Amino acid sequence: MSAVPDMRDVEQFYFAYASVIDDGDLETWPALFTEAGTYRIISKENFDRGLPLCLMYCQGAGMLKDRAFASAKLNVYAPRTWRHLISNIRVAQEGGRLEGQANFTVLETVAGKLTGILLCGRYIDVLERTAAGIRLVERTVVYDSTLIPGSVVFPV
Amino acid sequence: MSAVPDMRDVEQFYFAYASVIDDGDLETWPALFTEAGTYRIISKENFDRGLPLCLMYCQGAGMLKDRAFASAKLNVYAPRTWRHLISNIRVAQEGGRLEGQANFTVLETVAGKLTGILLCGRYIDVLERTAAGIRLVERTVVYDSTLIPGSVVFPV
Amino acid sequence: MSAVPDMRDVEQFYFAYASVIDDGDLETWPALFTEAGTYRIISKENFDRGLPLCLMYCQGAGMLKDRAFASAKLNVYAPRTWRHLISNIRVAQEGGRLEGQANFTVLETVAGKLTGILLCGRYIDVLERTAAGIRLVERTVVYDSTLIPGSVVFPV
Repeated sequence: MSAVPDMRDVEQFYFAYASVIDDGDLETWPALFTEAGTYRIISKENFDRGLPLCLMYCQGAGMLKDRAFASAKLNVYAPRTWRHLISNIRVAQEGGRLEGQANFTVLETVAGKLTGILLCGRYIDVLERTAAGIRLVERTVVYDSTLIPGSVVFPV
Repeated sequence: MSAVPDMRDVEQFYFAYASVIDDGDLETWPALFTEAGTYRIISKENFDRGLPLCLMYCQGAGMLKDRAFASAKLNVYAPRTWRHLISNIRVAQEGGRLEGQANFTVLETVAGKLTGILLCGRYIDVLERTAAGIRLVERTVVYDSTLIPGSVVFPV
Repeated sequence: MSAVPDMRDVEQFYFAYASVIDDGDLETWPALFTEAGTYRIISKENFDRGLPLCLMYCQGAGMLKDRAFASAKLNVYAPRTWRHLISNIRVAQEGGRLEGQANFTVLETVAGKLTGILLCGRYIDVLERTAAGIRLVERTVVYDSTLIPGSVVFPV
């Protein structure tokens, strides 16, 4: 991967993505994908072995909206704050496709408990420049953690 | 928020700020603010509800210097090392004002104990370009943590 | 330190370095140094006092390759995943020398255990532009941690 002119824009897009979730603005989350965009969360173990089982899978705006609505309105869980640390961002233009990678760490604070690491891993993305700005065609969230202390109640 | 030409300079200023604290160079810390600069540390809970109670509040160079002196010379605590991880930096020029935001995590190492998360959260800043470089007009440190393992002995 | 034109390239080099280790591609690691490149891991305590004792020390391609081979093939340890978070990157051109600094945090996931902080600290580097890209002339890994939960089985 080599740096591309879009670097800074992708970086800012990644930070905006993180803040949509951390600020509890989940209904905006589906709009960060293209209409047919896909999103999945998969363990590194399964990803490395080519096994298909995911923790979460959404294909297209309908499923993304459904998931955002469930996270924001339906699911029941103790109040908590998430903080996404996005680092090691790498962007490449591969044969007309804009590809991005980054490391993520989600720090979780459940009311009355110590702030801890919920999970960490890597984003593997295909991106697209649209009239409305950069959007995700595909986001694969590959998490390292083999044991997660609590529930993944929001999108990562 | 959209990226601005000052992006890289603000980023470098944020890293310089972090290293002033992590390297124990606290007497330099007040000089990172303008003469009338304000600094406060407030919980996300209070910040989100508009409640005024802060963990720390300094207004102007005198109070900032007083606080730095207390941290460096007066307070008594076990030897420790802080490491600021600054990520998700976003900078915007809003109506003539230079505004910045970033996520921070402070990792603390107390001698003989495991390195742990002290607290994490978000900086919300107003910045100014001065002849001496970028300076903070206002830094609000909004921390997510509801329980902090130990004391916040330095500025965040 | 002030920002230099090489900033973005050094940043991308740092992220490539991290992913070589995190992706288990250790045999590539020595090639990130110049032929006579040196690498050492030292505690902040010893570094600050000018004491020479290191946790790891390699001088030149032979020792680096030896170390990479030992990490990848000889040493015996439970399966684990490392995730390097590289932040607070600062680059300077000092009298013809390209110097870099960054904060690092290594998050470790041992199979069946919670993801935790292995260690954190600071890279202090001398870099060189070669025909093959940026390379490390010297990397000093100064870690804050006084107690490390487990073993440092890979290069940091």
